[in-house]
Amino acid sequence: AAAMLAVPLRPFCAFLAGLGLLCLAFVASWCQRWRGGFAWDGSARMFNWHPVLMVAGMVVLYGAAALVYRLPPAWRGPKLPWKLLHGALALTAFGLTVVGLVAVFGFHNASKTPNMYSLHSWLGLATVLLFSCQWLAGFSAFLLPYAPPWLRALYKPVHVFFGSTILMLSVASCVSGINEKLFFSLKNGTAPAPYNRLPPEAVFANTLGLFIVLFGVLVLCALAKPDWKRPEDGSTDTRQVPAVLWG
Amino acid sequence: AAAMLAVPLRPFCAFLAGLGLLCLAFVASWCQRWRGGFAWDGSARMFNWHPVLMVAGMVVLYGAAALVYRLPPAWRGPKLPWKLLHGALALTAFGLTVVGLVAVFGFHNASKTPNMYSLHSWLGLATVLLFSCQWLAGFSAFLLPYAPPWLRALYKPVHVFFGSTILMLSVASCVSGINEKLFFSLKNGTAPAPYNRLPPEAVFANTLGLFIVLFGVLVLCALAKPDWKRPEDGSTDTRQVPAVLWG
Repeated sequence: AAAMLAVPLRPFCAFLAGLGLLCLAFVASWCQRWRGGFAWDGSARMFNWHPVLMVAGMVVLYGAAALVYRLPPAWRGPKLPWKLLHGALALTAFGLTVVGLVAVFGFHNASKTPNMYSLHSWLGLATVLLFSCQWLAGFSAFLLPYAPPWLRALYKPVHVFFGSTILMLSVASCVSGINEKLFFSLKNGTAPAPYNRLPPEAVFANTLGLFIVLFGVLVLCALAKPDWKRPEDGSTDTRQVPAVLWG
Repeated sequence: AAAMLAVPLRPFCAFLAGLGLLCLAFVASWCQRWRGGFAWDGSARMFNWHPVLMVAGMVVLYGAAALVYRLPPAWRGPKLPWKLLHGALALTAFGLTVVGLVAVFGFHNASKTPNMYSLHSWLGLATVLLFSCQWLAGFSAFLLPYAPPWLRALYKPVHVFFGSTILMLSVASCVSGINEKLFFSLKNGTAPAPYNRLPPEAVFANTLGLFIVLFGVLVLCALAKPDWKRPEDGSTDTRQVPAVLWG
Protein backbone atom coordinates (compact mmCIF):
# COMPACT_ATOMS: atom_id res chain seq x y z
CA ALA A 1 0.00 0.00 0.00
CA ALA A 2 2.78 2.40 0.94
CA ALA A 3 4.19 1.94 -2.56
CA MET A 4 1.18 3.80 -3.96
CA LEU A 5 2.32 6.89 -2.09
CA ALA A 6 5.83 6.57 -3.48
CA VAL A 7 6.83 9.84 -5.12
CA PRO A 8 9.99 9.56 -7.21
CA LEU A 9 12.73 11.53 -5.48
CA ARG A 10 14.40 13.08 -8.54
CA PRO A 11 11.31 14.75 -10.06
CA PHE A 12 10.35 15.89 -6.55
CA CYS A 13 13.77 17.51 -6.05
CA ALA A 14 13.62 19.08 -9.51
CA PHE A 15 10.20 20.53 -8.68
CA LEU A 16 11.54 21.84 -5.35
CA ALA A 17 14.52 23.45 -7.09
CA GLY A 18 12.14 25.10 -9.55
CA LEU A 19 9.90 26.32 -6.73
CA GLY A 20 12.90 27.72 -4.85
CA LEU A 21 14.04 29.62 -7.95
CA LEU A 22 10.47 30.85 -8.44
CA CYS A 23 10.46 32.23 -4.87
CA LEU A 24 13.73 34.03 -5.58
CA ALA A 25 12.40 35.42 -8.88
CA PHE A 26 9.21 36.59 -7.16
CA VAL A 27 10.91 38.36 -4.25
CA ALA A 28 13.44 40.03 -6.57
CA SER A 29 10.72 41.11 -9.03
CA TRP A 30 8.58 42.50 -6.21
CA CYS A 31 11.43 44.70 -5.00
CA GLN A 32 12.54 45.64 -8.51
CA ARG A 33 9.17 46.42 -10.08
CA TRP A 34 7.19 47.89 -7.17
CA ARG A 35 9.70 48.89 -4.45
CA GLY A 36 12.24 50.86 -6.49
CA GLY A 37 14.99 48.29 -7.07
CA PHE A 38 18.31 47.85 -5.31
CA ALA A 39 21.08 50.05 -3.93
CA TRP A 40 23.40 50.10 -0.92
CA ASP A 41 22.88 53.67 0.25
CA GLY A 42 20.72 53.62 3.42
CA SER A 43 17.53 54.21 1.42
CA ALA A 44 14.49 51.94 1.00
CA ARG A 45 16.38 50.52 -1.98
CA MET A 46 18.99 49.22 0.49
CA PHE A 47 16.19 47.69 2.56
CA ASN A 48 15.13 45.75 -0.58
CA TRP A 49 18.20 43.53 -0.22
CA HIS A 50 16.71 42.31 3.08
CA PRO A 51 13.77 40.24 1.73
CA VAL A 52 15.78 38.97 -1.25
CA LEU A 53 18.76 37.83 0.84
CA MET A 54 16.65 36.34 3.64
CA VAL A 55 14.60 34.27 1.18
CA ALA A 56 17.78 33.26 -0.68
CA GLY A 57 19.68 32.39 2.53
CA MET A 58 17.23 31.25 5.20
CA VAL A 59 14.76 29.50 2.87
CA VAL A 60 16.11 28.41 -0.53
CA LEU A 61 19.80 27.75 0.18
CA TYR A 62 18.97 26.52 3.70
CA GLY A 63 16.49 24.06 2.16
CA ALA A 64 19.12 22.89 -0.33
CA ALA A 65 21.63 22.35 2.51
CA ALA A 66 19.06 20.40 4.52
CA LEU A 67 18.31 18.08 1.59
CA VAL A 68 21.93 17.20 0.71
CA TYR A 69 21.78 13.79 2.45
CA ARG A 70 18.52 12.94 0.69
CA LEU A 71 20.15 12.89 -2.77
CA PRO A 72 20.83 9.30 -3.89
CA PRO A 73 24.49 10.04 -4.85
CA ALA A 74 25.01 10.93 -1.17
CA TRP A 75 23.85 7.48 -0.12
CA ARG A 76 26.90 5.70 -1.51
CA GLY A 77 30.57 6.05 -0.82
CA PRO A 78 32.21 8.12 1.90
CA LYS A 79 30.03 10.58 3.79
CA LEU A 80 32.69 13.25 4.26
CA PRO A 81 32.28 15.07 0.90
CA TRP A 82 28.55 15.38 1.57
CA LYS A 83 29.17 16.66 5.08
CA LEU A 84 31.47 19.30 3.63
CA LEU A 85 28.85 20.25 1.01
CA HIS A 86 26.13 20.40 3.70
CA GLY A 87 28.27 22.61 5.94
CA ALA A 88 29.40 24.83 3.03
CA LEU A 89 25.85 25.39 1.74
CA ALA A 90 24.67 26.20 5.27
CA LEU A 91 27.59 28.59 5.77
CA THR A 92 26.80 30.33 2.47
CA ALA A 93 23.16 30.59 3.53
CA PHE A 94 24.31 32.11 6.82
CA GLY A 95 26.55 34.59 5.00
CA LEU A 96 23.68 35.81 2.79
CA THR A 97 21.53 36.06 5.93
CA VAL A 98 24.05 38.27 7.70
CA VAL A 99 24.25 40.63 4.70
CA GLY A 100 20.43 40.63 4.64
CA LEU A 101 20.41 41.72 8.29
CA VAL A 102 23.00 44.41 7.64
CA ALA A 103 20.72 45.75 4.88
CA VAL A 104 17.76 46.24 7.21
CA PHE A 105 19.77 47.61 10.15
CA GLY A 106 21.59 49.97 7.78
CA PHE A 107 18.31 51.24 6.34
CA HIS A 108 16.77 51.69 9.80
CA ASN A 109 19.80 53.52 11.16
CA ALA A 110 20.06 55.81 8.13
CA SER A 111 16.34 56.68 8.36
CA LYS A 112 16.37 56.95 12.21
CA THR A 113 13.86 54.09 12.50
CA PRO A 114 14.19 52.02 15.69
CA ASN A 115 15.45 48.46 15.30
CA MET A 116 14.06 45.21 16.69
CA TYR A 117 10.61 46.23 17.84
CA SER A 118 8.20 44.10 15.78
CA LEU A 119 7.33 40.48 16.46
CA HIS A 120 8.72 39.78 12.97
CA SER A 121 12.11 41.13 14.03
CA TRP A 122 12.10 39.23 17.34
CA LEU A 123 11.20 35.93 15.71
CA GLY A 124 13.52 36.52 12.75
CA LEU A 125 16.55 37.32 14.90
CA ALA A 126 15.83 34.37 17.21
CA THR A 127 15.76 32.16 14.09
CA VAL A 128 19.11 33.48 12.83
CA LEU A 129 20.68 33.06 16.29
CA LEU A 130 19.40 29.46 16.47
CA PHE A 131 20.83 28.89 12.98
CA SER A 132 24.26 30.18 14.03
CA CYS A 133 24.24 27.88 17.09
CA GLN A 134 23.14 24.98 14.88
CA TRP A 135 25.97 25.59 12.41
CA LEU A 136 28.64 25.93 15.11
CA ALA A 137 27.43 22.87 16.99
CA GLY A 138 27.21 20.83 13.78
CA PHE A 139 30.69 21.91 12.71
CA SER A 140 32.14 21.12 16.16
CA ALA A 141 30.44 17.76 16.49
CA PHE A 142 30.50 16.38 12.94
CA LEU A 143 33.46 17.99 11.14
CA LEU A 144 36.03 18.68 13.84
CA PRO A 145 37.70 15.44 14.95
CA TYR A 146 37.38 15.92 18.71
CA ALA A 147 33.80 14.93 19.57
CA PRO A 148 33.56 11.36 20.92
CA PRO A 149 31.16 9.03 19.08
CA TRP A 150 28.66 8.99 21.98
CA LEU A 151 28.37 12.78 21.83
CA ARG A 152 27.84 12.72 18.04
CA ALA A 153 25.17 10.03 18.43
CA LEU A 154 23.53 12.05 21.17
CA TYR A 155 23.57 15.32 19.24
CA LYS A 156 22.56 14.01 15.81
CA PRO A 157 18.77 13.73 16.42
CA VAL A 158 18.87 17.15 18.08
CA HIS A 159 20.63 18.62 15.02
CA VAL A 160 18.05 16.98 12.72
CA PHE A 161 15.11 18.27 14.79
CA PHE A 162 16.44 21.82 14.94
CA GLY A 163 17.19 21.66 11.21
CA SER A 164 13.47 21.32 10.50
CA THR A 165 12.47 23.71 13.30
CA ILE A 166 14.71 26.52 12.06
CA LEU A 167 13.27 26.20 8.54
CA MET A 168 9.76 26.39 10.01
CA LEU A 169 10.69 29.53 11.98
CA SER A 170 12.25 31.05 8.83
CA VAL A 171 9.02 30.54 6.92
CA ALA A 172 6.98 32.11 9.76
CA SER A 173 9.42 35.06 9.77
CA CYS A 174 9.09 35.51 5.99
CA VAL A 175 5.29 35.46 6.14
CA SER A 176 5.14 38.05 8.91
CA GLY A 177 7.77 40.17 7.16
CA ILE A 178 5.99 40.22 3.78
CA ASN A 179 2.68 40.99 5.52
CA GLU A 180 4.30 43.84 7.49
CA LYS A 181 6.06 45.31 4.45
CA LEU A 182 2.80 45.38 2.46
CA PHE A 183 1.00 47.22 5.30
CA PHE A 184 3.88 49.73 5.38
CA SER A 185 4.08 50.26 1.63
CA LEU A 186 0.41 50.10 0.59
CA LYS A 187 -1.19 52.64 2.93
CA ASN A 188 -4.46 54.46 2.33
CA GLY A 189 -3.97 56.79 -0.59
CA THR A 190 -1.32 54.62 -2.26
CA ALA A 191 -1.70 54.36 -6.05
CA PRO A 192 -3.29 52.38 -7.58
CA ALA A 193 -4.95 51.13 -4.36
CA PRO A 194 -4.18 50.45 -0.68
CA TYR A 195 -3.41 46.90 0.52
CA ASN A 196 -7.04 46.26 1.47
CA ARG A 197 -8.16 46.77 -2.17
CA LEU A 198 -5.64 44.14 -3.35
CA PRO A 199 -3.68 45.99 -6.04
CA PRO A 200 -1.47 43.81 -8.30
CA GLU A 201 1.55 44.26 -5.98
CA ALA A 202 -0.48 42.85 -3.04
CA VAL A 203 -1.64 39.80 -4.99
CA PHE A 204 1.92 39.24 -6.24
CA ALA A 205 3.57 39.49 -2.80
CA ASN A 206 0.82 37.45 -1.07
CA THR A 207 1.43 34.75 -3.71
CA LEU A 208 5.16 34.94 -2.98
CA GLY A 209 4.32 34.29 0.70
CA LEU A 210 2.27 31.21 -0.18
CA PHE A 211 5.06 29.91 -2.48
CA ILE A 212 7.55 30.26 0.39
CA VAL A 213 5.18 28.35 2.70
CA LEU A 214 4.75 25.62 0.07
CA PHE A 215 8.53 25.36 -0.43
CA GLY A 216 9.06 25.03 3.34
CA VAL A 217 6.34 22.39 3.73
CA LEU A 218 7.70 20.33 0.80
CA VAL A 219 11.27 20.46 2.18
CA LEU A 220 9.98 19.35 5.60
CA CYS A 221 8.01 16.59 3.85
CA ALA A 222 11.13 15.38 2.01
CA LEU A 223 13.14 15.47 5.27
CA ALA A 224 10.45 13.49 7.13
CA LYS A 225 9.98 10.69 4.55
CA PRO A 226 11.68 7.62 6.05
CA ASP A 227 12.52 6.00 2.70
CA TRP A 228 14.39 9.08 1.50
CA LYS A 229 16.79 8.99 4.45
CA ARG A 230 20.42 8.01 3.88
CA PRO A 231 20.81 4.34 4.89
CA GLU A 232 23.03 4.31 7.99
CA ASP A 233 24.94 1.06 7.46
CA GLY A 234 28.01 2.58 9.02
CA SER A 235 30.40 0.77 6.68
CA THR A 236 30.93 3.73 4.37
CA ASP A 237 30.37 6.37 7.00
CA THR A 238 33.47 8.44 7.55
CA ARG A 239 32.50 9.33 11.06
CA GLN A 240 35.00 12.14 11.40
CA VAL A 241 37.58 14.06 9.49
CA PRO A 242 41.00 12.46 10.11
CA ALA A 243 42.88 14.63 12.60
CA VAL A 244 45.74 14.96 10.13
CA LEU A 245 43.56 17.05 7.78
CA TRP A 246 43.20 19.65 10.53
CA GLY A 247 46.95 19.82 11.06
CA ALA B 1 23.61 7.55 24.68
CA ALA B 2 20.06 8.21 23.56
CA ALA B 3 18.91 7.58 27.13
CA MET B 4 20.69 10.77 28.17
CA LEU B 5 18.27 12.72 26.00
CA ALA B 6 15.28 10.99 27.52
CA VAL B 7 12.84 13.60 28.75
CA PRO B 8 10.11 12.15 30.98
CA LEU B 9 6.83 12.41 29.09
CA ARG B 10 4.52 13.37 31.96
CA PRO B 11 6.44 16.47 33.17
CA PHE B 12 6.87 17.48 29.52
CA CYS B 13 3.12 17.25 28.92
CA ALA B 14 2.40 19.12 32.16
CA PHE B 15 4.78 21.88 31.03
CA LEU B 16 3.09 21.98 27.61
CA ALA B 17 -0.35 22.23 29.21
CA GLY B 18 0.89 25.09 31.39
CA LEU B 19 2.42 26.84 28.38
CA GLY B 20 -0.84 26.43 26.41
CA LEU B 21 -2.82 27.96 29.27
CA LEU B 22 -0.26 30.76 29.49
CA CYS B 23 -0.77 31.52 25.76
CA LEU B 24 -4.54 31.67 26.35
CA ALA B 25 -4.12 33.91 29.40
CA PHE B 26 -1.78 36.21 27.45
CA VAL B 27 -4.01 36.60 24.41
CA ALA B 28 -7.12 37.18 26.56
CA SER B 29 -5.28 39.70 28.78
CA TRP B 30 -3.94 41.54 25.74
CA CYS B 31 -7.48 42.01 24.34
CA GLN B 32 -9.00 42.75 27.76
CA ARG B 33 -6.43 45.17 29.08
CA TRP B 34 -5.26 47.05 25.95
CA ARG B 35 -7.84 46.41 23.23
CA GLY B 36 -11.10 47.22 25.08
CA GLY B 37 -12.35 43.76 26.08
CA PHE B 38 -15.02 41.60 24.49
CA ALA B 39 -18.45 42.06 22.93
CA TRP B 40 -20.44 40.64 20.00
CA ASP B 41 -21.61 43.85 18.39
CA GLY B 42 -19.58 44.40 15.19
CA SER B 43 -17.09 46.68 16.98
CA ALA B 44 -13.37 46.18 17.59
CA ARG B 45 -14.47 44.42 20.79
CA MET B 46 -16.08 41.77 18.59
CA PHE B 47 -12.82 41.44 16.65
CA ASN B 48 -11.09 40.65 19.96
CA TRP B 49 -12.74 37.22 19.99
CA HIS B 50 -10.76 36.43 16.82
CA PRO B 51 -7.24 36.16 18.32
CA VAL B 52 -8.52 34.49 21.50
CA LEU B 53 -10.56 31.83 19.67
CA MET B 54 -7.91 31.14 17.01
CA VAL B 55 -5.21 30.61 19.65
CA ALA B 56 -7.61 28.48 21.72
CA GLY B 57 -8.77 26.42 18.73
CA MET B 58 -6.00 26.24 16.12
CA VAL B 59 -3.07 26.15 18.59
CA VAL B 60 -3.86 25.00 22.14
CA LEU B 61 -6.79 22.60 21.63
CA TYR B 62 -5.37 21.46 18.28
CA GLY B 63 -2.09 20.66 20.04
CA ALA B 64 -3.96 18.72 22.74
CA ALA B 65 -5.83 16.73 20.07
CA ALA B 66 -2.59 15.96 18.24
CA LEU B 67 -0.94 14.65 21.42
CA VAL B 68 -3.77 12.30 22.52
CA TYR B 69 -2.00 9.17 21.23
CA ARG B 70 1.22 10.17 22.99
CA LEU B 71 -0.31 9.80 26.47
CA PRO B 72 0.75 6.48 28.07
CA PRO B 73 -2.85 5.55 29.04
CA ALA B 74 -3.64 5.61 25.31
CA TRP B 75 -0.94 2.99 24.67
CA ARG B 76 -2.87 0.17 26.36
CA GLY B 77 -6.27 -1.30 25.75
CA PRO B 78 -8.58 -0.59 22.84
CA LYS B 79 -7.74 2.34 20.58
CA LEU B 80 -11.32 3.38 19.87
CA PRO B 81 -11.91 5.60 22.95
CA TRP B 82 -8.73 7.52 22.11
CA LYS B 83 -9.76 7.90 18.50
CA LEU B 84 -13.07 9.34 19.67
CA LEU B 85 -11.28 11.71 22.06
CA HIS B 86 -8.85 12.78 19.29
CA GLY B 87 -11.73 13.42 16.87
CA ALA B 88 -13.83 15.21 19.49
CA LEU B 89 -10.98 17.52 20.57
CA ALA B 90 -10.21 18.33 16.94
CA LEU B 91 -13.90 19.00 16.25
CA THR B 92 -14.11 21.31 19.28
CA ALA B 93 -10.98 23.10 18.06
CA PHE B 94 -12.61 23.48 14.64
CA GLY B 95 -15.82 24.85 16.22
CA LEU B 96 -13.88 27.52 18.15
CA THR B 97 -12.01 28.36 14.95
CA VAL B 98 -15.22 28.90 12.98
CA VAL B 99 -16.59 31.23 15.68
CA GLY B 100 -13.22 33.02 15.60
CA LEU B 101 -13.59 33.54 11.85
CA VAL B 102 -17.18 34.76 12.24
CA ALA B 103 -15.86 37.35 14.74
CA VAL B 104 -13.40 38.86 12.26
CA PHE B 105 -15.71 38.75 9.23
CA GLY B 106 -18.51 40.27 11.34
CA PHE B 107 -16.24 43.09 12.49
CA HIS B 108 -14.97 43.77 8.95
CA ASN B 109 -18.48 43.79 7.48
CA ALA B 110 -19.87 46.07 10.21
CA SER B 111 -16.97 48.52 9.74
CA LYS B 112 -17.00 48.25 5.89
CA THR B 113 -13.46 46.88 5.91
CA PRO B 114 -12.65 44.51 2.99
CA ASN B 115 -12.13 40.85 3.90
CA MET B 116 -9.35 38.48 2.86
CA TYR B 117 -6.72 40.83 1.48
CA SER B 118 -3.68 40.34 3.73
CA LEU B 119 -1.20 37.48 3.48
CA HIS B 120 -2.21 36.69 7.08
CA SER B 121 -5.80 36.13 5.96
CA TRP B 122 -4.81 34.06 2.90
CA LEU B 123 -2.52 31.80 4.94
CA GLY B 124 -4.95 31.60 7.86
CA LEU B 125 -7.93 30.63 5.73
CA ALA B 126 -5.85 28.08 3.78
CA THR B 127 -4.84 26.58 7.16
CA VAL B 128 -8.46 26.33 8.34
CA LEU B 129 -9.55 24.79 5.02
CA LEU B 130 -6.74 22.22 5.26
CA PHE B 131 -7.84 21.50 8.84
CA SER B 132 -11.44 20.89 7.76
CA CYS B 133 -10.28 18.49 5.00
CA GLN B 134 -8.00 16.76 7.52
CA TRP B 135 -10.87 16.29 9.99
CA LEU B 136 -13.30 14.99 7.36
CA ALA B 137 -10.76 12.64 5.84
CA GLY B 138 -9.70 11.36 9.29
CA PHE B 139 -13.31 10.82 10.31
CA SER B 140 -14.13 9.02 7.06
CA ALA B 141 -11.05 6.82 7.08
CA PHE B 142 -10.56 6.04 10.77
CA LEU B 143 -13.99 6.29 12.45
CA LEU B 144 -16.50 5.35 9.77
CA PRO B 145 -16.43 1.59 9.11
CA TYR B 146 -16.26 1.71 5.34
CA ALA B 147 -12.60 2.39 4.50
CA PRO B 148 -10.71 -0.79 3.60
CA PRO B 149 -7.53 -1.51 5.63
CA TRP B 150 -5.21 -0.75 2.70
CA LEU B 151 -6.74 2.73 2.35
CA ARG B 152 -6.35 3.39 6.08
CA ALA B 153 -2.73 2.23 5.95
CA LEU B 154 -2.12 4.44 2.93
CA TYR B 155 -3.74 7.51 4.44
CA LYS B 156 -2.34 7.28 7.97
CA PRO B 157 1.16 8.73 7.28
CA VAL B 158 -0.47 11.48 5.20
CA HIS B 159 -2.79 12.33 8.12
CA VAL B 160 0.16 12.38 10.52
CA PHE B 161 2.23 14.62 8.22
CA PHE B 162 -0.60 17.09 7.66
CA GLY B 163 -1.31 17.08 11.40
CA SER B 164 2.12 18.61 12.03
CA THR B 165 1.98 20.80 8.92
CA ILE B 166 -1.34 22.39 9.86
CA LEU B 167 -0.03 23.23 13.34
CA MET B 168 3.02 24.84 11.75
CA LEU B 169 0.81 26.90 9.42
CA SER B 170 -1.38 27.91 12.40
CA VAL B 171 1.66 29.21 14.26
CA ALA B 172 2.80 31.17 11.19
CA SER B 173 -0.72 32.61 10.87
CA CYS B 174 -0.75 33.64 14.55
CA VAL B 175 2.64 35.35 14.30
CA SER B 176 1.64 37.34 11.21
CA GLY B 177 -1.74 38.20 12.76
CA ILE B 178 -0.27 39.49 16.04
CA ASN B 179 2.34 41.49 14.12
CA GLU B 180 -0.34 42.99 11.84
CA LYS B 181 -2.68 43.84 14.73
CA LEU B 182 0.10 45.68 16.60
CA PHE B 183 0.92 47.76 13.50
CA PHE B 184 -2.79 48.60 13.18
CA SER B 185 -3.32 49.47 16.85
CA LEU B 186 -0.04 51.14 17.78
CA LYS B 187 0.26 53.82 15.10
CA ASN B 188 2.28 56.99 15.35
CA GLY B 189 0.66 59.20 17.97
CA THR B 190 -0.70 56.25 20.00
CA ALA B 191 -0.36 56.71 23.77
CA PRO B 192 1.93 55.90 25.48
CA ALA B 193 4.07 55.19 22.39
CA PRO B 194 3.82 53.75 18.84
CA TYR B 195 4.83 50.13 18.14
CA ASN B 196 8.36 51.13 17.17
CA ARG B 197 8.99 52.56 20.67
CA LEU B 198 7.98 49.24 22.25
CA PRO B 199 5.30 50.31 24.76
CA PRO B 200 4.27 47.65 27.34
CA GLU B 201 1.47 46.34 25.07
CA ALA B 202 3.99 45.68 22.27
CA VAL B 203 6.39 43.81 24.58
CA PHE B 204 3.46 41.82 25.99
CA ALA B 205 2.00 40.83 22.60
CA ASN B 206 5.43 40.09 21.05
CA THR B 207 6.06 37.79 24.04
CA LEU B 208 2.70 36.12 23.39
CA GLY B 209 3.85 35.48 19.82
CA LEU B 210 7.08 33.84 21.00
CA PHE B 211 5.16 31.70 23.53
CA ILE B 212 2.87 30.48 20.72
CA VAL B 213 5.93 29.62 18.60
CA LEU B 214 7.50 27.76 21.56
CA PHE B 215 4.27 25.85 22.20
CA GLY B 216 4.07 24.83 18.52
CA VAL B 217 7.72 23.73 18.38
CA LEU B 218 7.39 21.66 21.58
CA VAL B 219 4.21 19.94 20.32
CA LEU B 220 5.98 19.14 17.02
CA CYS B 221 8.94 17.86 19.04
CA ALA B 222 6.68 15.59 21.12
CA LEU B 223 4.98 14.32 17.94
CA ALA B 224 8.33 13.59 16.28
CA LYS B 225 9.98 11.68 19.17
CA PRO B 226 9.92 8.01 18.11
CA ASP B 227 9.84 6.64 21.68
CA TRP B 228 6.71 8.63 22.52
CA LYS B 229 4.71 7.06 19.70
CA ARG B 230 1.97 4.56 20.50
CA PRO B 231 3.36 1.04 20.01
CA GLU B 232 1.50 -0.43 17.03
CA ASP B 233 1.35 -4.10 18.01
CA GLY B 234 -2.05 -4.41 16.39
CA SER B 235 -3.34 -6.82 19.05
CA THR B 236 -5.30 -4.21 20.98
CA ASP B 237 -5.97 -1.94 18.04
CA THR B 238 -9.67 -1.67 17.31
CA ARG B 239 -9.12 -0.81 13.69
CA GLN B 240 -12.62 0.44 13.07
CA VAL B 241 -15.89 1.16 14.79
CA PRO B 242 -18.17 -1.90 14.45
CA ALA B 243 -20.75 -1.14 11.76
CA VAL B 244 -23.54 -1.86 14.24
CA LEU B 245 -22.67 1.26 16.26
CA TRP B 246 -23.42 3.39 13.20
CA GLY B 247 -26.85 1.78 12.77
